[in-house]
Amino acid sequence: MIVLFTDFGLQGPYVGQVKARLLAEAPGVPIVDLFSDAPARDARSAAYLLAAYMAEFPSDSVFLSVVDPGVGGDRPALVVRADGRWFVGPDNGLFELILRRARDVPRVWEISWRPERLSASFHGRDLFAPVAARLALGEPPSGEERPAEEGRHLDWPDDLARIVYIDIFGNAISGIRASVLDQDTELRVGNSRLKRVETFTRVAQGRPFWYENANGLAEIAVNMGNASEIIGLRVGSEIAIGGRGKITDSE
Amino acid sequence: MIVLFTDFGLQGPYVGQVKARLLAEAPGVPIVDLFSDAPARDARSAAYLLAAYMAEFPSDSVFLSVVDPGVGGDRPALVVRADGRWFVGPDNGLFELILRRARDVPRVWEISWRPERLSASFHGRDLFAPVAARLALGEPPSGEERPAEEGRHLDWPDDLARIVYIDIFGNAISGIRASVLDQDTELRVGNSRLKRVETFTRVAQGRPFWYENANGLAEIAVNMGNASEIIGLRVGSEIAIGGRGKITDSE
Amino acid sequence: MIVLFTDFGLQGPYVGQVKARLLAEAPGVPIVDLFSDAPARDARSAAYLLAAYMAEFPSDSVFLSVVDPGVGGDRPALVVRADGRWFVGPDNGLFELILRRARDVPRVWEISWRPERLSASFHGRDLFAPVAARLALGEPPSGEERPAEEGRHLDWPDDLARIVYIDIFGNAISGIRASVLDQDTELRVGNSRLKRVETFTRVAQGRPFWYENANGLAEIAVNMGNASEIIGLRVGSEIAIGGRGKITDSE
Repeated sequence: MIVLFTDFGLQGPYVGQVKARLLAEAPGVPIVDLFSDAPARDARSAAYLLAAYMAEFPSDSVFLSVVDPGVGGDRPALVVRADGRWFVGPDNGLFELILRRARDVPRVWEISWRPERLSASFHGRDLFAPVAARLALGEPPSGEERPAEEGRHLDWPDDLARIVYIDIFGNAISGIRASVLDQDTELRVGNSRLKRVETFTRVAQGRPFWYENANGLAEIAVNMGNASEIIGLRVGSEIAIGGRGKITDSE
Repeated sequence: MIVLFTDFGLQGPYVGQVKARLLAEAPGVPIVDLFSDAPARDARSAAYLLAAYMAEFPSDSVFLSVVDPGVGGDRPALVVRADGRWFVGPDNGLFELILRRARDVPRVWEISWRPERLSASFHGRDLFAPVAARLALGEPPSGEERPAEEGRHLDWPDDLARIVYIDIFGNAISGIRASVLDQDTELRVGNSRLKRVETFTRVAQGRPFWYENANGLAEIAVNMGNASEIIGLRVGSEIAIGGRGKITDSE
Repeated sequence: MIVLFTDFGLQGPYVGQVKARLLAEAPGVPIVDLFSDAPARDARSAAYLLAAYMAEFPSDSVFLSVVDPGVGGDRPALVVRADGRWFVGPDNGLFELILRRARDVPRVWEISWRPERLSASFHGRDLFAPVAARLALGEPPSGEERPAEEGRHLDWPDDLARIVYIDIFGNAISGIRASVLDQDTELRVGNSRLKRVETFTRVAQGRPFWYENANGLAEIAVNMGNASEIIGLRVGSEIAIGGRGKITDSE
């Protein structure tokens, strides 16, 4: 299975062009759109999202992961092997949390292969898609292995106390794994102090709260309402983590 | 064929996560997105839409139908067999018109199976998708059959004289089957009185009208214009049904 | 491979309904969404976009191409064979640039076949999809061949000096092939004079420029910014082409 995780947008031709390339090079391999609207040009936010959402996919899934503001520059292109899955994309921190949280020994290759025709602006189609297709067919990564410790972003926190994605209902997903927070931890965003609940239906309509979403991240929501509009949240908004009276700084 | 009818939104990971689960459990079964933007959290409007749009799909298609504001609460999960097709989703009226209009004897099961890991907020992925996958593979419904007369919404009208969907062009789809309206029936929405026409090209540009859409519903449109903006319509807007001078109340 | 190029919108049921028809009539043939948001009801702008984006697809791909403001009227339905590919859609100029730029001798058929049930408003599903499915299965076009010179739009320019598409990042794609412009050609839109650059990363953030996009069209962009909003562009905006001091009229 090839899983697309990009900021290419749903509109326009980009995702379709990538799929056409994948279908041509790896016929019959199923393709799934995970995110087409990952945080645009924001590799750090995207890194926390990818690490949380990749876990449910089958072993040997190939994640074509492109949030790539540096396209056309000289950032390397990578293949990563971690937790039994493949990741293909730019070397800009997008795989930092995958590497950091891997339960096996992760491996990293720099892709040296270049296609005959490489556009300056669309490596997702021209470079990353053919590489992902070949991995999906069981071929080994083309390129030179490098130490998994190289080019890391060790200054990034283990959990990012910021909003990393706002969904179509206005729910605001944070970069914090709910499992690192106590049951009675409050989250503070803007002027709001939010308690944890188990499910939407246990909260009065219109009241903001946070909960562990279906992929293990702390998510801010309002029952039958748009949390992001009500509280005033966007990707990047800071979250302060409290609990038993204590509020710690975000990040 | 598995057909997705949800209010999960096009953005974000939700539809992709459902598809990944379907592909894992029913490899090779084609998946079609019918609506990803069914009326959000509005099972009644969605019910009229689903009943009108399901008819063109092949026999034994499985409709994974999730408009589910009560997720995480105690509403049962259902499998419905009607008109030679399968429907999987929450017990909240979403299948009311399917059941009421069935030309065969419809059957209903309460899904008793639960997955090993059931999130509180994403039954579409965790519960309904695996059930739909198994039906698509030809397995019988898991769970207890219950009388098709149970838990019905008999107070809902046979045709809903309200807008149930507004499409990207601003066309406003009603919950009324055009076949129940006379050729000379006028529809009244807001301050507008609309006549029926056969095709867009027979109407002057900018003029609102109604017509029988390609799925048999009465739809309000403006040739080369945005009917919803021009008239001021949204999902839920009431429609008064007239004809030969007579205007009857909506609903 | 069947490639969808339509203005049906991503929202709503339309693309899914077309795919269901294709899957039923040509099971196993891969379907790719190229554009679901081609310039709405604007066959001329769409024609320049289609001609630029079809080139990368494999030989014998079938392009189901529907930008069809005249649906329900009496415009003929066409099959076009050009550059080793098939095109199916309305006779309104959508294939003008495909025909004009063809490197082989293009052929055109008028589709005489009609389905048992043809809705007035959705020929994409009812007429064009079954025709495309049969071509994808290797069947010959149904209908009468007509001279490829008939019904042409020879008054349309070879390159359209207007914006034909604005992508989700605000990049504005023109109908001009970059290959017809000198390296030092400036483009003038509104009050802006834009120089050509090779890649985004060579330009200061916030500065507008133009470049050859990954499909060979001149595209106006801003590094890390929304060019359309900053400059004030929409589909149809005129572009003046300059170079070495000379500015020529658009179109």
